[in-house]
Amino acid sequence: MPLLVMKFGGTSLATIELIKKAAERVKVEVSRGYEVIVIVSAMSGKTNELIGWVNKTSSIYDAREYDAIVSSGEQVTAGLLALVLQNLDIPARSWQGWQVPLKTSSNHSSARIEEIPTQNLRTKFKEGMKVAVVAGFQGLSLDNRVTTLGRGGSDTTAVAFAAAFGAERCDIYTDVDGIYTTDPRVCEKARKLNQISFEEMLELASQGAKVLQTRSVELAMRFNVRVRVLSSFDPSPDQSGTIVCKEEDVVEKNVVAGVAFSRDEAKMTLISVSDKPGIAAAIFGPLSEAGVNVDMIVQNISDDGLTDMTFSCPTQDVDRAKNALLEHRVSGQIHFEDLIADTEVAKVSVVGIGMRSHAGVAAQMFNTLKDENINIKVITTSEIKISVLIDRKYLELAVQALHNTFKLEKQV
Amino acid sequence: MPLLVMKFGGTSLATIELIKKAAERVKVEVSRGYEVIVIVSAMSGKTNELIGWVNKTSSIYDAREYDAIVSSGEQVTAGLLALVLQNLDIPARSWQGWQVPLKTSSNHSSARIEEIPTQNLRTKFKEGMKVAVVAGFQGLSLDNRVTTLGRGGSDTTAVAFAAAFGAERCDIYTDVDGIYTTDPRVCEKARKLNQISFEEMLELASQGAKVLQTRSVELAMRFNVRVRVLSSFDPSPDQSGTIVCKEEDVVEKNVVAGVAFSRDEAKMTLISVSDKPGIAAAIFGPLSEAGVNVDMIVQNISDDGLTDMTFSCPTQDVDRAKNALLEHRVSGQIHFEDLIADTEVAKVSVVGIGMRSHAGVAAQMFNTLKDENINIKVITTSEIKISVLIDRKYLELAVQALHNTFKLEKQV
Repeated sequence: MPLLVMKFGGTSLATIELIKKAAERVKVEVSRGYEVIVIVSAMSGKTNELIGWVNKTSSIYDAREYDAIVSSGEQVTAGLLALVLQNLDIPARSWQGWQVPLKTSSNHSSARIEEIPTQNLRTKFKEGMKVAVVAGFQGLSLDNRVTTLGRGGSDTTAVAFAAAFGAERCDIYTDVDGIYTTDPRVCEKARKLNQISFEEMLELASQGAKVLQTRSVELAMRFNVRVRVLSSFDPSPDQSGTIVCKEEDVVEKNVVAGVAFSRDEAKMTLISVSDKPGIAAAIFGPLSEAGVNVDMIVQNISDDGLTDMTFSCPTQDVDRAKNALLEHRVSGQIHFEDLIADTEVAKVSVVGIGMRSHAGVAAQMFNTLKDENINIKVITTSEIKISVLIDRKYLELAVQALHNTFKLEKQV
Repeated sequence: MPLLVMKFGGTSLATIELIKKAAERVKVEVSRGYEVIVIVSAMSGKTNELIGWVNKTSSIYDAREYDAIVSSGEQVTAGLLALVLQNLDIPARSWQGWQVPLKTSSNHSSARIEEIPTQNLRTKFKEGMKVAVVAGFQGLSLDNRVTTLGRGGSDTTAVAFAAAFGAERCDIYTDVDGIYTTDPRVCEKARKLNQISFEEMLELASQGAKVLQTRSVELAMRFNVRVRVLSSFDPSPDQSGTIVCKEEDVVEKNVVAGVAFSRDEAKMTLISVSDKPGIAAAIFGPLSEAGVNVDMIVQNISDDGLTDMTFSCPTQDVDRAKNALLEHRVSGQIHFEDLIADTEVAKVSVVGIGMRSHAGVAAQMFNTLKDENINIKVITTSEIKISVLIDRKYLELAVQALHNTFKLEKQV
């Protein structure tokens, strides 16, 4: 019997009414002849309530206890959805992470999935279970404690189950009806894509598009899991949605697939750093230890053995970055004259597999920004992506202009 | 190292502030040199929230899913209390039922504890853990699913752990400071007992005193676990509380220990039942199948082969009882002329081990009620208890009068 994985996010399960709606969707797929594994998030708001309690409780952060507490939200929705499905005459039961068991590494709160043995679920499917409702986001460590996978972990759970069970497809039900060329709230010409390649989706996700979590896309790419993003709130989601799949299966092929952006970026510059081997390690080692998420890095041309080093990071990491760098200057491990933080910047990225074969995308991008009088502060590129840092106030303007330049409103 | 079991109920853990207060009590015991197992209930109100969702979700009642959902509340408080204890520099960790594992029967929602292997906790105690915070009320069935123990299950969990680990004592922290001769809200002369025997506590609990759950007292009696009931809200609970222990360890020995009562009783009478062998089975078999909790049973003297049969049950069971009996009359399995339900009655019980050696307690009780002009509708007795059914409107009067008669306000 063909098997389908369906994942419902917290906004799709926020109330009992919505849980009933999700169950109706599952029923449609069961009536099409699928065995279904449903991965559920916690009811919207519940995880934050639990995190709030943890924060009020203790200044010590024990990730093992955090995980034990926070994972309870998914456990509740899994049970509730199983009950609703039974009410619809569908043989269903809930599975907590440790019951599957979904085996993970022991780094709590951001554990990695290591193995999903399929035997327990397969036995129950053979015994007549039609739907396994699995609590997402959680697993079991080697020493028998509950782990969680970190933000977006339910997407990752869903893709991992689809890979382990050889599912025909992994449907991610969410509050938007697919992947867009850019955020429609910023650019009204934004167009929903029918298909997108894993590689492009990965760049879009890591550059700020929030529909799918980066790790889930990596996993889908690695195991070639066909992912479909669609809306829980659409009465006929089958006619809608976006398929994320292998490059060769994508029919429509624009040079540029989309424009992604991230609003809360900061640019930090270390002035007059001594330019000698090992200096990058001396700077970025401590930043990494301090948990600063460094993104772009640029080093200026050296002058008299001194150079300026610029990097970007999320604005929320700025204080931690400053403290780490100043501490290491005091202790003599790093030398620099000054540290300048610009917290009013944003990142805009143009992503497309077509760039590999089409020269001139970068030039078009820079020209567009120049025509709008937008100054580029930092540039980085990958094979299928160009990112620039600009003043935050120009973000909307830049996204709209680039969307126009690459004619993203039109399907090729 | 001596080991102590402490149990905190839902009202004692209702807020983060109260959880912190509970942790301070645990710390006191740790500083006295104990290893501690803490059994926690869910935060007050949380279990009802979860049950509310289950009821809104489904007309089908799958106790396995119910248990998976409802057990999440204890899991949260266990994690939170462990965090607070760590914050106080006490090596603590949370344990869910399946992690211990607390093994139970498979009858979900009212499972019985079958075994508590001590190895996992003992290993961690050896490795330096000082406090194990265990989610109460829950266990694991043979087929690896979460079970719950039913109402009051956390008390039972606590006593079972104390028995399994040979604890010095099992302290039940609750919202009252001990066991009283009767409910102080009904009789202002009610006096807190310093000690009470298992047998008396069992009768009081099963006759309506709600401080300890009956099953937990049974278990304590069976394994001779010294139980102390004390208040979470008392700044120095050690000076207070009630010890529940073996009869021979009780120093103060009133003839009567206390007066218990239950307000919501109903008296049902079947008129003109044919008085022949097997008739009781024919009546009470169907009632048991319908889940009616029959308490007292009285059969009148037979007249011409016909008799009246009277029994009492909680008022909430009356409709179920009626339906079951009428159904079986229609099908011809029981014959009776009429069925009279009196839902305005209450039960008052006088309990005391001293009754065994002191004659005349029953006479004193009946005389007291006669002096107050209270009519007795049904009487039942056990070795250490006399219960009567009376009109509900006389309940307070009866309790106060009996409290006076047996001089319960005075310690012997």
